Amino acid sequence: MLMNRDKSVLLIVDVQERLAPAIHDGERVAANCVWLAGVAQRVGVPVVVTEHFPDKIGATLESVKAATGGAQYVTKQCFSAQSDGCLAATAVQERRQVIVCGTEAHVCVQQTALELRWAGKEVFVAADASGSRDPADRELAFARMRSHGIEIVSCEMVAFEWLQRGGTELFRGVSRDFIR
Amino acid sequence: MLMNRDKSVLLIVDVQERLAPAIHDGERVAANCVWLAGVAQRVGVPVVVTEHFPDKIGATLESVKAATGGAQYVTKQCFSAQSDGCLAATAVQERRQVIVCGTEAHVCVQQTALELRWAGKEVFVAADASGSRDPADRELAFARMRSHGIEIVSCEMVAFEWLQRGGTELFRGVSRDFIR
Amino acid sequence: MLMNRDKSVLLIVDVQERLAPAIHDGERVAANCVWLAGVAQRVGVPVVVTEHFPDKIGATLESVKAATGGAQYVTKQCFSAQSDGCLAATAVQERRQVIVCGTEAHVCVQQTALELRWAGKEVFVAADASGSRDPADRELAFARMRSHGIEIVSCEMVAFEWLQRGGTELFRGVSRDFIR
Amino acid sequence: MLMNRDKSVLLIVDVQERLAPAIHDGERVAANCVWLAGVAQRVGVPVVVTEHFPDKIGATLESVKAATGGAQYVTKQCFSAQSDGCLAATAVQERRQVIVCGTEAHVCVQQTALELRWAGKEVFVAADASGSRDPADRELAFARMRSHGIEIVSCEMVAFEWLQRGGTELFRGVSRDFIR
Repeated sequence: MLMNRDKSVLLIVDVQERLAPAIHDGERVAANCVWLAGVAQRVGVPVVVTEHFPDKIGATLESVKAATGGAQYVTKQCFSAQSDGCLAATAVQERRQVIVCGTEAHVCVQQTALELRWAGKEVFVAADASGSRDPADRELAFARMRSHGIEIVSCEMVAFEWLQRGGTELFRGVSRDFIR
Repeated sequence: MLMNRDKSVLLIVDVQERLAPAIHDGERVAANCVWLAGVAQRVGVPVVVTEHFPDKIGATLESVKAATGGAQYVTKQCFSAQSDGCLAATAVQERRQVIVCGTEAHVCVQQTALELRWAGKEVFVAADASGSRDPADRELAFARMRSHGIEIVSCEMVAFEWLQRGGTELFRGVSRDFIR
Repeated sequence: MLMNRDKSVLLIVDVQERLAPAIHDGERVAANCVWLAGVAQRVGVPVVVTEHFPDKIGATLESVKAATGGAQYVTKQCFSAQSDGCLAATAVQERRQVIVCGTEAHVCVQQTALELRWAGKEVFVAADASGSRDPADRELAFARMRSHGIEIVSCEMVAFEWLQRGGTELFRGVSRDFIR
Repeated sequence: MLMNRDKSVLLIVDVQERLAPAIHDGERVAANCVWLAGVAQRVGVPVVVTEHFPDKIGATLESVKAATGGAQYVTKQCFSAQSDGCLAATAVQERRQVIVCGTEAHVCVQQTALELRWAGKEVFVAADASGSRDPADRELAFARMRSHGIEIVSCEMVAFEWLQRGGTELFRGVSRDFIR
């Protein structure tokens, strides 16, 4: 089915201070995570944020933190947040559709997305909000995830599917504040 | 099966005055919608045109209007014309194969195409007659639709499958007036 | 399974004099058809050649004719050679694997390949021996055929799978005369 | 499932002296085979190396030999190592997941990978450690293998899935010595 805001959770993976500067086109990836988090908050979609060894890789970027007030933050040691167990008490468990973004697309994003898919979730990866150090790794990850039934989407697809229709107060607000 | 003119309907989505100028390569997209509408009329395929909030987004482009005399025009409020219900009394309901084109590829075209597919239609999206503001969104939409069994085709594929054979009066007319 | 020379037939579609000059990268496409025909003859794979309205579109290119001595030539009126019926008495009926090449990739090659696939054949389209006037049409055709289980291969894949192993007289001959 | 070091074997195909110089971007392909072999050794994954008619095509590259101490070396005559039978007494038989790399991507790598897949293995091809003389052949091979359920991965995906988690001695060692 299309992404539905009553069934969705947004999962932001490892957008952390000492990893972010190495990501190809990393500023745009982080800005799109912030954008998605903003839209999620506006339409009432819960947000979960993972951090991989934050003592070593650094905290989540300030811009992402500022956009995710009220989100659940979890720490992980496995690359896959699903294997790790850190998602057990989060909104990811309660929702059928998981929209995943963050870094690195071919490591923690991909491993998490694949294992969520195999656990029965509908998984959507926001391509323009996901990155790797080497863009070739990112492209291979998207193709691989697609072959397992994961939907590779764009941030705008997420927003327009969550909104579902025009003509509402909600649409006008999101359109004015988020759509370029 | 191949596209068959006795089983097909052409669905032109939201080619409207205040959206069209923002579409990447928009003049070509609109020209190809006009081209497809012309071929459809010639071979006897019914045409349905959707307009999204025409009071705000404007009327269908004059060039498309001129090419779709006799078409059914419907207005919608949901991005997906299928969710909206506006297709209920149209030729889309009566035909098994729906050829979809228009804008934006990753919003109204995609949502409509996916939901028609899930409702059991054979769905074909004419790639060169479909566009988005950002071409990256369009490419992601095509790949996503493909993964759900939607066929991403070109305008010429549509025409040659509707025609099925050479040597007929019908073929000579379409060839002379439409094939470059 | 891999392409096997005892189960294969090579089907060359519509490489004709008045169409060939319009094909994008057409000289290479024709040269690769000739190359495939040469390898087919050497390894004992039967060859079938279609011509679409040869009185209007011209005869098969001389270079292809010269490489296909002993091949079955058939004339067709439908774009799909399978719908047309012209393949009924040919080696295409007797063999389980059909390797298709020629022009145009998105019209006669594609329609024929799809209908052979739906008729139960294993179908392989030699990408570098297939062309369209517009290369965008060709790419869309390859992606569409892939989604129906047709294998998009290269001429070298065909040759090496037909040969299966090195160290034989047959391999040495083909390697010397065909592999660059 | 993700690649698991207890279930994996690394299969390096035909990285030989008289073929390597002809491979497109061949130095990078060979360097990535060496890299993968190094990571495999470190995490305890067995390595199998094939050579195709080494008396004619030359021995395995010295750099690969140096990185594969303890590996099983086998000689083959069929392009597909699986058809050939040379893998019968190797670790490939004992492991469920086979990570394949080497040359040429569209001949021996592809034929081997496809037949291992059809024999029931989970097959992963390391794209950045696999090459052909003509890069177009390589791309067609990756797309074709994908359509048969073979996963096209990158060397880093292999390493991070074998490692599974950070914070261990094993991770720190591999990270320090291999991750750029």
